[in-house]
Amino acid sequence: MPVRQGRYTLVLPSAPGISGYAAVVGKKEGEGPLGSGFDYIYEDGTAGEKTWEKAESVMHRDAVSRAISKAGISPQDADVIFAGDLLNQCIGSTFGIRELGIPFAGMYGACSTMALSLAAAAACVDSRIAETAIASTSSHFCSAEKQFRMPLEYGGQRTPTSQWTATAASAAVVTKNEAKARIEKVIIGRIQDYGIKDANNMGAAMAPAACRTIADFLRDTNTSPSDYDLILTGDLGTVGTELLCELMMKQENIDISSVHSDCGLMIYDVSKQKEVGAGGSGCGCSGAVLCSEILKRLELGELKKVFFVGTGALMSSVSSLQSESIPSVAHGVLLAGG
Amino acid sequence: MPVRQGRYTLVLPSAPGISGYAAVVGKKEGEGPLGSGFDYIYEDGTAGEKTWEKAESVMHRDAVSRAISKAGISPQDADVIFAGDLLNQCIGSTFGIRELGIPFAGMYGACSTMALSLAAAAACVDSRIAETAIASTSSHFCSAEKQFRMPLEYGGQRTPTSQWTATAASAAVVTKNEAKARIEKVIIGRIQDYGIKDANNMGAAMAPAACRTIADFLRDTNTSPSDYDLILTGDLGTVGTELLCELMMKQENIDISSVHSDCGLMIYDVSKQKEVGAGGSGCGCSGAVLCSEILKRLELGELKKVFFVGTGALMSSVSSLQSESIPSVAHGVLLAGG
Repeated sequence: MPVRQGRYTLVLPSAPGISGYAAVVGKKEGEGPLGSGFDYIYEDGTAGEKTWEKAESVMHRDAVSRAISKAGISPQDADVIFAGDLLNQCIGSTFGIRELGIPFAGMYGACSTMALSLAAAAACVDSRIAETAIASTSSHFCSAEKQFRMPLEYGGQRTPTSQWTATAASAAVVTKNEAKARIEKVIIGRIQDYGIKDANNMGAAMAPAACRTIADFLRDTNTSPSDYDLILTGDLGTVGTELLCELMMKQENIDISSVHSDCGLMIYDVSKQKEVGAGGSGCGCSGAVLCSEILKRLELGELKKVFFVGTGALMSSVSSLQSESIPSVAHGVLLAGG
Repeated sequence: MPVRQGRYTLVLPSAPGISGYAAVVGKKEGEGPLGSGFDYIYEDGTAGEKTWEKAESVMHRDAVSRAISKAGISPQDADVIFAGDLLNQCIGSTFGIRELGIPFAGMYGACSTMALSLAAAAACVDSRIAETAIASTSSHFCSAEKQFRMPLEYGGQRTPTSQWTATAASAAVVTKNEAKARIEKVIIGRIQDYGIKDANNMGAAMAPAACRTIADFLRDTNTSPSDYDLILTGDLGTVGTELLCELMMKQENIDISSVHSDCGLMIYDVSKQKEVGAGGSGCGCSGAVLCSEILKRLELGELKKVFFVGTGALMSSVSSLQSESIPSVAHGVLLAGG
């Protein structure tokens, strides 16, 4: 049964295990540094569909199906699926998983959705709300660009601070028994709003939320950055990463720079794949990095303790047009090798 | 600790209590049959704001603040808030509650969001994931109409099957101890898709999901409609209600008609307020009916067992333009008098 540690952290004494995980990505992500570790690379971003939204749903379903299959279960064995994405009314998820017949709890955390869903799945399994819970998410560069920014055909120039929405879907199956990695603690974040209004600089908007959650977690658990092999944010990119390290030093007097990495800087080679600007973003980005490289290294024992912090910018194109600032949130999951 | 009953139902042995609840609504809802029972009626639908979205956020925050205050706690006492709404990227919720500093888990269930959030809050409290959890949601006729259908200024004629998005926000505070009503069981629904494509007939699209969840729940709990004072769906309207009763009879051989009511038919007087068409809808509709009339009657002992079933249509305007059908889901919460 979960036990609270400090004000915001939840310890999961049974340390629910991830028994299956999968990540499928688009061509550009396949060409990135982690390319060989993904379960499938869609060379054709349409996935054979007529629209980008339908393509995203196909990838979402594919990731969930692969994770279920790798966990050695069938969809009927799952008690609940926590899923969400960036598309209006989360149609990437709902149309993706509608045929699976799994009880569906929709989640919204923008790019933090994988951390939020995984935290929910783990808390459910630890507390016996579910025997088997799934967390999944997706994003697609083309559906996101069209929805949040400009028609693709417009070919607008991007600012250097802007991030590239990853075409990726990922899923993890959480159960009590088998484990390739275990989830020991989770923390649900509080919304932070530093008044950033530039929708082309999400990293800056999200860094304060990451700072808040990491600081809360370290204080709650009475630990320091050196207790972790990796503090992994997703996705701050170059601008947000620099800001996060600075905020952690100035506000909290904590130096995380030696153990910090960011999924947005791992999925692409920012120095070579210039078009991605400040790095990757989108629900699928941190999900895909987690459900390939990170979980694999935890499974192999190369990593022992990873604090995964998903960050989400809680805005819409309407809120930005109405001159609103960008509130953000970050949720954390402490992973340990299986 | 939660215990599973049958395949899909979760029994919450501690029966978490609702210690505070509130509903605020717009003018038209205030003029409806339940008008005198709401906590506040916004005669001005803008709530003094410049945009409909900002107005919805103001109402959302207002409902949460009132529920917290009526529960006799402060925002810092809440361990988590489950919140969601219909707006793209759920900005009604996120901008509404951003200043409260409560750990925020965003949920998406379209019009089923109040049932989903309340189920999550109750499961968390029963399993000690949280001591105090809040569920909240909102919708606004003008922000929804603008986003899903036509600019308000266009003045388009509505079909008789279309439902009227309620301008309403609601919140409930769930804790282990005090109780005006208790949550005994919850069920998370499975997505149903009967191929309905008419976005002006949500009731028809959502009825199969309500049927599925009610049938699953009755079978899991080995109960019949006569065991409940009320099976309350939200929101099917006139068309969906008729279809639900028919589906329950034909597919499941269960007659729910004598104990069934629908929030969409309670919030307005459909025979007099002709402009609402087939009845109310929107996240705020079922939330506001629950967090006024229903919880009050449970508190007073006039109702003893209410099975509240929130229904959600999981589409977006983009999916409809792409000729997709409308998948739906329904989540259930069994409420008992305090």
